[in-house]
Amino acid sequence: MKVGFIGLGRMGQAMAGRLQAAGHDLVVYNRTREKAAELEKAGAKVAGSIGEACVGREAVITMLADDKALADVVRGGLLESLPKGAVHVAMGTHGVAVLGEMEAEHQAAGAAFVSAPVLGRPDAAAAGQIVIVAAGPADAVQKLEPLFSAMGRRTFSGGTNPAGAAAVKLANNMVLGCAIEAMAEAYALTRKFGVEPSVFYEVMTDGLFAAPAYKVYGNIIAKQAYDQAGFTTKLGFKDSNLMLAAGQAASVPLPSLGVYRDRLLSAIAQGDGDRDWSVIARVQARLSGLDS
Amino acid sequence: MKVGFIGLGRMGQAMAGRLQAAGHDLVVYNRTREKAAELEKAGAKVAGSIGEACVGREAVITMLADDKALADVVRGGLLESLPKGAVHVAMGTHGVAVLGEMEAEHQAAGAAFVSAPVLGRPDAAAAGQIVIVAAGPADAVQKLEPLFSAMGRRTFSGGTNPAGAAAVKLANNMVLGCAIEAMAEAYALTRKFGVEPSVFYEVMTDGLFAAPAYKVYGNIIAKQAYDQAGFTTKLGFKDSNLMLAAGQAASVPLPSLGVYRDRLLSAIAQGDGDRDWSVIARVQARLSGLDS
Amino acid sequence: MKVGFIGLGRMGQAMAGRLQAAGHDLVVYNRTREKAAELEKAGAKVAGSIGEACVGREAVITMLADDKALADVVRGGLLESLPKGAVHVAMGTHGVAVLGEMEAEHQAAGAAFVSAPVLGRPDAAAAGQIVIVAAGPADAVQKLEPLFSAMGRRTFSGGTNPAGAAAVKLANNMVLGCAIEAMAEAYALTRKFGVEPSVFYEVMTDGLFAAPAYKVYGNIIAKQAYDQAGFTTKLGFKDSNLMLAAGQAASVPLPSLGVYRDRLLSAIAQGDGDRDWSVIARVQARLSGLDS
Amino acid sequence: MKVGFIGLGRMGQAMAGRLQAAGHDLVVYNRTREKAAELEKAGAKVAGSIGEACVGREAVITMLADDKALADVVRGGLLESLPKGAVHVAMGTHGVAVLGEMEAEHQAAGAAFVSAPVLGRPDAAAAGQIVIVAAGPADAVQKLEPLFSAMGRRTFSGGTNPAGAAAVKLANNMVLGCAIEAMAEAYALTRKFGVEPSVFYEVMTDGLFAAPAYKVYGNIIAKQAYDQAGFTTKLGFKDSNLMLAAGQAASVPLPSLGVYRDRLLSAIAQGDGDRDWSVIARVQARLSGLDS
Repeated sequence: MKVGFIGLGRMGQAMAGRLQAAGHDLVVYNRTREKAAELEKAGAKVAGSIGEACVGREAVITMLADDKALADVVRGGLLESLPKGAVHVAMGTHGVAVLGEMEAEHQAAGAAFVSAPVLGRPDAAAAGQIVIVAAGPADAVQKLEPLFSAMGRRTFSGGTNPAGAAAVKLANNMVLGCAIEAMAEAYALTRKFGVEPSVFYEVMTDGLFAAPAYKVYGNIIAKQAYDQAGFTTKLGFKDSNLMLAAGQAASVPLPSLGVYRDRLLSAIAQGDGDRDWSVIARVQARLSGLDS
Repeated sequence: MKVGFIGLGRMGQAMAGRLQAAGHDLVVYNRTREKAAELEKAGAKVAGSIGEACVGREAVITMLADDKALADVVRGGLLESLPKGAVHVAMGTHGVAVLGEMEAEHQAAGAAFVSAPVLGRPDAAAAGQIVIVAAGPADAVQKLEPLFSAMGRRTFSGGTNPAGAAAVKLANNMVLGCAIEAMAEAYALTRKFGVEPSVFYEVMTDGLFAAPAYKVYGNIIAKQAYDQAGFTTKLGFKDSNLMLAAGQAASVPLPSLGVYRDRLLSAIAQGDGDRDWSVIARVQARLSGLDS
Repeated sequence: MKVGFIGLGRMGQAMAGRLQAAGHDLVVYNRTREKAAELEKAGAKVAGSIGEACVGREAVITMLADDKALADVVRGGLLESLPKGAVHVAMGTHGVAVLGEMEAEHQAAGAAFVSAPVLGRPDAAAAGQIVIVAAGPADAVQKLEPLFSAMGRRTFSGGTNPAGAAAVKLANNMVLGCAIEAMAEAYALTRKFGVEPSVFYEVMTDGLFAAPAYKVYGNIIAKQAYDQAGFTTKLGFKDSNLMLAAGQAASVPLPSLGVYRDRLLSAIAQGDGDRDWSVIARVQARLSGLDS
Repeated sequence: MKVGFIGLGRMGQAMAGRLQAAGHDLVVYNRTREKAAELEKAGAKVAGSIGEACVGREAVITMLADDKALADVVRGGLLESLPKGAVHVAMGTHGVAVLGEMEAEHQAAGAAFVSAPVLGRPDAAAAGQIVIVAAGPADAVQKLEPLFSAMGRRTFSGGTNPAGAAAVKLANNMVLGCAIEAMAEAYALTRKFGVEPSVFYEVMTDGLFAAPAYKVYGNIIAKQAYDQAGFTTKLGFKDSNLMLAAGQAASVPLPSLGVYRDRLLSAIAQGDGDRDWSVIARVQARLSGLDS
């Protein structure tokens, strides 16, 4: 399949690499060209502009860092170069508002727009083990199937509204944030009754909560190992704003999000913005009269 | 080991059955005697009073429904009949306040007091698959080890403060309540963007949340199958009060508990008190402008 | 009117003093007799027991510190000595649960029970300037009118359910707690933008919030003058539990109460339990990255 | 003083009218010119463009509906036409982010920027009874004093950071929102104990809460008179986003805001977006099992 790929951060490189390896005809583009070097070595063509990465392509994938970058790329060449009948699939994590705008602009331009955020980190992407949630017009999503199956281990349908896929990814992350906050409260409570954090960790993850979310973050909190940030407080806070905006767009109150979002903000205020976002357990500990 | 067992509800019967099967010398007592019938058939002696179930025993287990029942049993015969050096282990789910009182009364009477709440349902208890969290004087806990290993698959140490074991069980349940509330919010959010609940369920439980808590309750919410209550809203609310009291005793604010506790109260107000406690997702749905 | 008065704390003494001054035939009782000295000098008879303060009285007023004291007095002599047709009016601040129990026990004993908590401090009580909220059977409340008008400047009807009067007092205090928390957040926010607390104080109390609640507590927070406690954090927390219990009894979620109750708990955890309850502004300040 | 005035909505017209009446040399501008008719009759000059309203002026006042309008006016002529040494004072209610941007752009252009939001409605503005909170460089604020005193009854200093004045106005409104939510909870609680809303209204406003905020909104809630919207739910929600953004910019968690913001969102979801924002009391009532 003739594919354009724009946005070669760590995730983008890994995903594009999978497509190249699967034999797709790939043209890649990144603002700073050096990030395309490895893909070029592997056989991908490197475009000199956004438009060049779109001309003649059946599908263009964008994997961009934020909403502004997405809008800039779409308006800065993608939409005007995308062939009639081609599909643009935005695979970054974007807010529902920008996705709504993009959908309208593609529709006006006669192009198909799909949102397909991914779950998983760069190593999972490199191994083709990410999970993809795709939403948009059914035929456009179907056309992308060979690409999705080259990049991920499973694709879920978020419905026909591109924002739906974003909602799924954001909601999944929100459930994670709530779990971290719940653990923060639970550890503080048990610690004040003299219980070792490692014991509470074992009880949780031995039973009802034998899942990565609790194993990874329960362990960080138990050991107060906030310095090796997998995902920083600041990024968690930024993400929480996307969720809040989704709740606003759909008129859905999200009180549990509110609780942990406030904790993230306090962690930032207290100087822990660059630590792992589970450092909200420290905010909770201090509020409980513990030193940390 | 010479064991007295007081409180033969469904959990109590199953646990006492394990002890009898393991060859312990068992005397059981229940206010309504008929609940002892099966154990009697299996070879246990049936006491006619609390005191009779304690005299001459090395350990007495209580498995009682609430704090009042525990205090009534302790003050109504247990403490005065318990031999010197014997241990009373309370295995019901009790509040930290009553455990503190019991600890003091046992100490004054020269008896050892251990709190050892269990995680698991009657079928797990019958199969010896429950998990036990034990807290109290180290030597007393150690003495109980043969009993614990006959009843459960794993025993965790909640430290030397009996209330610590209660805190672990309550905190674990609190983390569950927070997870249910988080799912309630997440389902409402994704539904309003046109996403099928079954899809969100799959995304969650396929990845970060591949654990019983999310599989069981995520499924109930996705199907709105609140009528087969595994654990009712009213019981969940009662439990939430024990957590709140633990937070109060230890000066630990629990905002996430506050969120779902308020939802449980609304579910009760809206007539859903006897449905499964995950019906809080319906409260959230209505608040989001959905019918149910 | 023949009146018995039980409970001579600072409020009780002041209120009983008003009744004595108004010419009522007063018999007073307090567990520690010396608190009755001043009233005795003023002409009141001093009873040696609860029962003695009730025999032959048309109305008996109790002004007791907590729910346990109320139940103890009612069950420890009041109910058995109260003449047929007489009214017992509980003027302390009590929880709705104990009021429900008391109502039932009075009814069973053929006595009338009214709840009539007061708003105002001892100096207002001494000046007859307190406000009374009375709830109970209409005829009983009416019979008490001469007493109420001697003690207070205004009486409100809380309906026929004694718990209704308690709900009014508790709800009024809850609105106050929410106002203090709102100010705590507002001061933290404005301070971080370089605004003098005294300026924000002026803006608030100059306009929409030109009322005692904001003037008194807004001033304490602006000056961080938490050491002269008008009402301590611990008392505020105790009060919050009565509100929470009222919400539970009536199935009413109270999320704003939850927010400031959690703050009170943190203030206690951080060692500020005996300071003025507006010290929750310090908790908020720290959460905002301010030192205090 | 030579004044330019841009933005002639209801507030703007009233404020400009005060300046004209006080004898200032006034040039006004509004996108739709007809709104300038009355001021023109009163003697003001009407500019045909933004720039024309700024050229040769000592001070330019903007009174614009939102952040976008402010940025558009500043970048669309104001900044390039403002004389050296002149002051631009933005008197609308703006978010802290746009104020920060405007401050930087004025500084770069060598102009002084002051933020001075007002408290009060159009009738108060017409009567010169609004309250002004001004923040910015001290000399610039001082220069504006004659204008402020013509327009309002009192001016408060929000410090030297223009965002500070916005923070004061937003915080004051936030305290109001919290008060409404607190009343919503208090009314639901007392109603469920059989207390008439009018009684609770009287108790509140007779004492601690004898202030406009409680009188106005307490009355609307007591009468459920949400249809005559003084300030709609949607506007309240929009305002809440400005507060949230201010909290984010300053790293200040605002949990009480979170509570009532979620209620506003539910009111919108339930179809009450165009009713008075105190309709959040209806959301609370339903959550308490009341019909409305």
